[in-house]
Amino acid sequence: MRKVIYGGACSLDGFLAREDGAVDWLMWSDEAGKLMKDSWSRFDTMLMGRKTYEVALKSMPAGSRENPYGEVETYVFSTKLDAKKDPGVTIVSTGAAEVVGNLKEKDGKDICLMGGGLLARSLFEADLIDEVGFNVHPLLLGSGVPSFHPMSRQIDLELVDCKPLKNGCVYVLYRVKH
Amino acid sequence: MRKVIYGGACSLDGFLAREDGAVDWLMWSDEAGKLMKDSWSRFDTMLMGRKTYEVALKSMPAGSRENPYGEVETYVFSTKLDAKKDPGVTIVSTGAAEVVGNLKEKDGKDICLMGGGLLARSLFEADLIDEVGFNVHPLLLGSGVPSFHPMSRQIDLELVDCKPLKNGCVYVLYRVKH
Repeated sequence: MRKVIYGGACSLDGFLAREDGAVDWLMWSDEAGKLMKDSWSRFDTMLMGRKTYEVALKSMPAGSRENPYGEVETYVFSTKLDAKKDPGVTIVSTGAAEVVGNLKEKDGKDICLMGGGLLARSLFEADLIDEVGFNVHPLLLGSGVPSFHPMSRQIDLELVDCKPLKNGCVYVLYRVKH
Repeated sequence: MRKVIYGGACSLDGFLAREDGAVDWLMWSDEAGKLMKDSWSRFDTMLMGRKTYEVALKSMPAGSRENPYGEVETYVFSTKLDAKKDPGVTIVSTGAAEVVGNLKEKDGKDICLMGGGLLARSLFEADLIDEVGFNVHPLLLGSGVPSFHPMSRQIDLELVDCKPLKNGCVYVLYRVKH
């Protein structure tokens, strides 16, 4: 079965972005680039919440509603977006857990869950996430968009990989114990 | 000048303990024991909030108000405790930042800030914390006592040490960039 991997970059205090969505604190490096390239080769499908999608859209030419992830099959979970306005992505407005459960049963490569944390929470609660991978940046943002929201249950993990990078980031990858 | 090190064990989602203060999820190991022994040899002074102190008191014989940390000079920050009832520790009811600033100027070994996160926040805001060290456990608690509370400013860190342990914990130590 295809795996769902939740991950991205976060601060040591567990934020994915500043309050306003800014990720100006991200540190780029050849090492991080290689890790990302290796990770991306695993995926052909992407899941994200509306806010994450809207941040990604800002990297596109002004006004574009093209899929910011190009060829990658992209699902955006939102009750506010209009599928007609965003034909390059699939808008999912209800039943996130069922949709993701069905996607996992289909043939294909693994599935990347980019954020946000609220979508991750609903998929953790439904036990649909198989791995958690973060590039932990060496700073405390103090406030922002959390990578983990409160959950009604504990999730046990197994450490699969841990790489301190030269720039002070720490890449960690965990397998979820189902 | 003496350094203040904030640290302990936390879950990947950044909790020091469950909602009720329980730390039954802590994983013991020879490696963690050696890291703790090496860390403790740096300290002769301990800072903590009332809740952390009350959890530590539970490890003492029933009803004891002896200093749970024995010979280590211990400061408990609380407006609720009565100094007369706890003669083994110093109760600080106001001016935490000033007290800690003065302690740093005194001769002695380094100072360990065990928690909680609210005391850490006030000392981070006053730029009095010099290092941050955590043994990150491989689990998501889902809820609990946070290691980092919202702060009004960003704190930049430099990675000093990162050790994945055999049991899946990851020990990280950072220097605060003042």
